[in-house]
Amino acid sequence: MNSDMKIHEINAKMEALKSAFDQYREIPLSQRTRFMHDTGERLLKNKDRLIQIAMKETHLPAERLLGELKRTAFQLTSYADACKNGYWMDIRIQKPAEENKPVIKKMNVPLGPVLIFGAGNFPFAYSTAGGDTACALAAGCSVMVKAHPQHAATSDAVAGIIEEAVKENNMPSHLFMHVHANDLSLVEKLVKHPVIKAVGFTGSYKAGKQIFDWGNTREQPIPVFAEMGSTNPVFILPGKMKESAEPYAQTVSDSILTDAGQFCTKPGILVIQKNTDANIFLKTLQDKMSQATPVAMLNVGIYENYEYKKGLSTEQENVKTISTNKHNRQPLMGTPQLTLIDAKDFIANNVLKQEVFGPYCIIVCCRDINEMKQVASSLEGQLTCTLAATVQEAGQQKELIKILQSICGRFIFNGVPTGVQVCPAMQHGGPFPATTSSLFTSVGPDGIKRFTRPLAFQNVAEELLPDALKETNPLQLWRYTDDRFTR
Amino acid sequence: MNSDMKIHEINAKMEALKSAFDQYREIPLSQRTRFMHDTGERLLKNKDRLIQIAMKETHLPAERLLGELKRTAFQLTSYADACKNGYWMDIRIQKPAEENKPVIKKMNVPLGPVLIFGAGNFPFAYSTAGGDTACALAAGCSVMVKAHPQHAATSDAVAGIIEEAVKENNMPSHLFMHVHANDLSLVEKLVKHPVIKAVGFTGSYKAGKQIFDWGNTREQPIPVFAEMGSTNPVFILPGKMKESAEPYAQTVSDSILTDAGQFCTKPGILVIQKNTDANIFLKTLQDKMSQATPVAMLNVGIYENYEYKKGLSTEQENVKTISTNKHNRQPLMGTPQLTLIDAKDFIANNVLKQEVFGPYCIIVCCRDINEMKQVASSLEGQLTCTLAATVQEAGQQKELIKILQSICGRFIFNGVPTGVQVCPAMQHGGPFPATTSSLFTSVGPDGIKRFTRPLAFQNVAEELLPDALKETNPLQLWRYTDDRFTR
Repeated sequence: MNSDMKIHEINAKMEALKSAFDQYREIPLSQRTRFMHDTGERLLKNKDRLIQIAMKETHLPAERLLGELKRTAFQLTSYADACKNGYWMDIRIQKPAEENKPVIKKMNVPLGPVLIFGAGNFPFAYSTAGGDTACALAAGCSVMVKAHPQHAATSDAVAGIIEEAVKENNMPSHLFMHVHANDLSLVEKLVKHPVIKAVGFTGSYKAGKQIFDWGNTREQPIPVFAEMGSTNPVFILPGKMKESAEPYAQTVSDSILTDAGQFCTKPGILVIQKNTDANIFLKTLQDKMSQATPVAMLNVGIYENYEYKKGLSTEQENVKTISTNKHNRQPLMGTPQLTLIDAKDFIANNVLKQEVFGPYCIIVCCRDINEMKQVASSLEGQLTCTLAATVQEAGQQKELIKILQSICGRFIFNGVPTGVQVCPAMQHGGPFPATTSSLFTSVGPDGIKRFTRPLAFQNVAEELLPDALKETNPLQLWRYTDDRFTR
Repeated sequence: MNSDMKIHEINAKMEALKSAFDQYREIPLSQRTRFMHDTGERLLKNKDRLIQIAMKETHLPAERLLGELKRTAFQLTSYADACKNGYWMDIRIQKPAEENKPVIKKMNVPLGPVLIFGAGNFPFAYSTAGGDTACALAAGCSVMVKAHPQHAATSDAVAGIIEEAVKENNMPSHLFMHVHANDLSLVEKLVKHPVIKAVGFTGSYKAGKQIFDWGNTREQPIPVFAEMGSTNPVFILPGKMKESAEPYAQTVSDSILTDAGQFCTKPGILVIQKNTDANIFLKTLQDKMSQATPVAMLNVGIYENYEYKKGLSTEQENVKTISTNKHNRQPLMGTPQLTLIDAKDFIANNVLKQEVFGPYCIIVCCRDINEMKQVASSLEGQLTCTLAATVQEAGQQKELIKILQSICGRFIFNGVPTGVQVCPAMQHGGPFPATTSSLFTSVGPDGIKRFTRPLAFQNVAEELLPDALKETNPLQLWRYTDDRFTR
């Protein structure tokens, strides 16, 4: 673990971050775009070295890390490209409706310096140069990243590449800063520093909620966008079970098992109705979970937490273990496990509704659709909810669908929640406690909006307007005017 | 003052509000639109009665109240109309970029039941049927309004009209609920009730911050959109002063004096450079402020608070009173007052930077442009900042403009901040402490977004999608797909 920054360094670093912001926000969008593209390219150029470091720290396989690094570069370039078309800027232009009324133009402008926490389970894609950093840079903000202690060397290596890109692209120095800060009181000082105007976090509920509270109790409260976990329940209706119990069980078990289930969107709860088709589904799932070769988890902390949470869930009253992995248990290895419980017992026990981060899943057996609805109603806010059903039977279960949609940010029909696409239509976020603000997404170019605020320009002379708002639309951004979007 | 609701009634009322929400969110946009239009029409039909009640309670003149009622109806209808075109829904459609990738569609869906606090200074436009209510109803939320105690009868009358419209338009009963709750612990219970998913508030910093804190410390935190005051500084550069000292002083004094300065956008601080042109400006302003006939303020509480805050500001070290109103002082009458101070003393004294709600204004005298920048840098978050300047001199003061834009939600060039247009390009909101979230507006159809959250639909069969997301776009809403907006 790298040594923490010193408390006496904070103010100077923050001043530098502020000064970088004041310069960066004035830099033309085209240069911002070029810099971000170049950063992505540099990451890929260094892929062998980066993956090697990350493998050592996270035990993730090379293939997965390569995929993640490509995703990281894609996020940087696609959020940069979103600056070219500007739809996330929410530009509105109001010509005077009556005489003597002013022209009013509005656009999203950067919030200010942003503090971002590296995520333990995504050493590249949601850490140092990850989604939050890419969004903040696209927004026009300077960024301080607090390295995740469990992949500190990876974080250092990525930070070095970003800093190189900053320099080579003539961006303001200290536009990107990288710090190690593991002492809690130091982290609190960073979150509460007046220079910081927003925070991005992905991790545990405990840490996320603490940072959220710090953000709210500052002298000047700031938005804290924290993603804090989700059980991603999957509801399977009888028709679907009849139609494809076996193949769907294959798909679901892959979703549970990939990379030891260390995804925020891993399905942790399956809700089914008891019948003979369900038995085929269960059998397939049991086989897959029993036979799967356990893989090393990210680090000892994650492994121990998995063992503890898995044990806690399994030991609850009336929980039945229905798969025993055939491989010998070894330290650090995330052993897959499947348990089963009746709906009534599940509904009454909130411990079972907590996320178990790793290849664990609990199956909730219902007598009928009414019990499925009761299970759905008993759940807290989620990143995702999935309904597996034939179109016909789903059409008859509008109420269940309504309940599921009311508690999640993404509703999936006949699929699995893992595999979060980076695209404008993605919503990655959901009602508390999945995140601290369901009003925003952390994946896709709309995530840039988290680090911006609208600013209206009233009656401002053409010469004094930012290019984005000039009459001729020189940047060819999407703008809403006279009830229409034009470019 | 009407008597408070009873604590034992809360749960039943909240259940009704929740049930109304569950029904209302499913009602087609066209019916939502019709209901809101009808509500606006009913308000106007009852204008004589409503204005009579409001005049008694608020002392506002009939003409102003008529204007405000028209604005209220306009907000209802224009936010309703924004549902027809749907640009605030931020619809994004992602066709599969590669094979085996799902279709993902995203739109803003209503957050849930909303609690809204009536605003003291706008008995119609920002109270019972006001901007927040109109936004929440357009979003698809049910609404509970907590009546402002100082215009409780007006609130009752307006509520009766909304309830009539709910009934006549076959909307779910209890879609709109109206309560009196003046006991603080009762208000806390409302804000913290689990059914409530967002809060809208306009009023004092003290009350707004308290409600914000309650919202954040709930078991499930919710967004509290509180607008809490602003001094709306106006910076006047020498060229503008030379060009139009006298007419601009007329405009500014009207902005200070209208309706006893009881607007959140009243200019409370004027920042000038000392010179002979400035003397003409000051003389004109002094004359207007001295001669203006004081008008009755909203209520005794507002009047007493004005007297107290005006006194507090005037009595600060080195503050010089430069206008004495020629009319005899009378209880309830808001006597205009102008004071003057040197920049150095202003910068050092935070009392002078607080809002004085009423026809009071302090003039800050600077030696040069650098001192003007220092004054700007010393200010907190504002709803608006105004720069009065010739285009040429403004072009040379980019740094001052940058500072002003960094602390406000709306930047006005050569105008005054009062008169907040209801239009898509409006931003009414600003950095803390002007509001609790600078990321949203409370005026204009984008204000609807405060009461929505994005929901993504992945791989969902056409039959199961909301109309807004169906392939053929039957509602003709604006949608973003393949890097383009189409309708």
